[in-house]
Amino acid sequence: MDLIFLGTSAGVPTRRRNVSGLALRPRESGDWLLFDCGEATQHQVMKSPLSLFRLRRIFITHLHGDHVYGLFGLLASRGMLQAETSLEIYGPEGLARLLESVMELSQLHLPFPLEIIEVSGGDRLDFDGYRIETVPLSHSITCYGYVLIEAERPGRFEPKKARQLGVPEGPLFGRLQSGETIRLPDGRLVHSSDVLGQARPGRRVIVGGDNDRPGLFAPYGAVDLMIHEATYLQRDFDRLPRKFKHSTALQLGIAAEAMGVKRLVATHISARYDREENLAALLAEIRSHYRGDAAIAYDLMELTLP
Amino acid sequence: MDLIFLGTSAGVPTRRRNVSGLALRPRESGDWLLFDCGEATQHQVMKSPLSLFRLRRIFITHLHGDHVYGLFGLLASRGMLQAETSLEIYGPEGLARLLESVMELSQLHLPFPLEIIEVSGGDRLDFDGYRIETVPLSHSITCYGYVLIEAERPGRFEPKKARQLGVPEGPLFGRLQSGETIRLPDGRLVHSSDVLGQARPGRRVIVGGDNDRPGLFAPYGAVDLMIHEATYLQRDFDRLPRKFKHSTALQLGIAAEAMGVKRLVATHISARYDREENLAALLAEIRSHYRGDAAIAYDLMELTLP
Repeated sequence: MDLIFLGTSAGVPTRRRNVSGLALRPRESGDWLLFDCGEATQHQVMKSPLSLFRLRRIFITHLHGDHVYGLFGLLASRGMLQAETSLEIYGPEGLARLLESVMELSQLHLPFPLEIIEVSGGDRLDFDGYRIETVPLSHSITCYGYVLIEAERPGRFEPKKARQLGVPEGPLFGRLQSGETIRLPDGRLVHSSDVLGQARPGRRVIVGGDNDRPGLFAPYGAVDLMIHEATYLQRDFDRLPRKFKHSTALQLGIAAEAMGVKRLVATHISARYDREENLAALLAEIRSHYRGDAAIAYDLMELTLP
Repeated sequence: MDLIFLGTSAGVPTRRRNVSGLALRPRESGDWLLFDCGEATQHQVMKSPLSLFRLRRIFITHLHGDHVYGLFGLLASRGMLQAETSLEIYGPEGLARLLESVMELSQLHLPFPLEIIEVSGGDRLDFDGYRIETVPLSHSITCYGYVLIEAERPGRFEPKKARQLGVPEGPLFGRLQSGETIRLPDGRLVHSSDVLGQARPGRRVIVGGDNDRPGLFAPYGAVDLMIHEATYLQRDFDRLPRKFKHSTALQLGIAAEAMGVKRLVATHISARYDREENLAALLAEIRSHYRGDAAIAYDLMELTLP
């Protein structure tokens, strides 16, 4: 599984960071998922190794502009490229009306099937090899986080066990590996479970939306990767005259530590932290509480989950 | 008057060209007008010397996505910057519904007054120092070109004439220059018209939209500058299985020559011509008929009308 951060800025683009967008390839097939689609996400895709042809699903956390205004142009360009494979877009109520209004008024006709699916909190969306669960978040408008959970993978094939059971090396090994039961020349049956190690649980990745309560993901516990906004430093947030419903780096560090998250990437960084020393301060605030592997995302950062 | 080409590609952005956007500063005040606003126009503004604070009016030629999808994010960012000066957006019918739908569904609340004015063909919009006339064009959806016509400027002050009439050098010169009638110490009246040369007609600039009949601007004749799409080479257009309602470089050259246009800039270039040699071919096709000053626009190209 690998990820490319297409946009990591909060609210407005800066010279270094575009607004929200995150690409995730669940496996090596080349097909990818997109989480949020701020303006100019298609421009970021052009700078990445991704292809719009291979984009299969989009998940929108909420309808604020910096998370959705890139949808229309991305769809239009995918259409102009004459892509024909279907595209699904998941997101909160209102998403269908938004897309349909814009498409109608700008006369956008797509050559590929587009399915718009409005989700609710606690939905479970099942796909081939993984599922996605929606988590209602705490923001100024309806906002969902998405937790991607890979299907349990069969245990590793243990050739030693197979040999002990008298299975001859060759095609029968492969059939056992792929989960079949086989019959040996002497008539005995060997089940794949006899020669496979313990099933391996799928990895879990949290993709947060805008949210001032990162602890809402606590039920998912020690996930393999948590990607979550950390818009402000706590000391700056405390001084803001008006409180926006966003997380601080401190809050995120506390929540991720409590959950036992294995790897943490903070994103949706306020434009005020565009300079290196400020990013270091954000990371330090996270690390003041979180002892796992933490990073501040930057545009076009690539990350592989082994 | 100066212009900055913010986006010069047709339909889709490429690595070198963004979709449509053109900034025009009518005078040296810093205030500017924007013609069309494709996705990521605000990103292009960041790369230019322009400021969103000083953007006063936007003119939209038509509602195809590559001309409007940047409006929402540009408004949102101007709002986030806490700009307070009003903004007017002119464009075809449907523009208000488009903006209102998106603003409502994405909960975009602006701190500045926004006025949306839907125009018709043949409208005359009067502003301080210039007017803009709308020209209905020939495209697959309603599309308008905009012709900017500066107000007539008073003739040049001729100090020789003033001296001949017995006006003493000093403050009276200034009052005559600014159009006043003055009384001399000996009682005689001197009118500004007595000491000013012939009034100078304002300059005229055509900003075309998508249009397969550039000759529709012929009533404006020998304008100072014509900016118009030339999406294709004629030989490529002739081979297209489906005809899109766009101009070729050849057509544009013929029309501009017939009109006696003083300066011509071709824009809205198909992505297929992204390489230098192809751009040279476009320019050659224009020059095969047009004998004035011609150029192919590129992103962030600046142009000053003296």
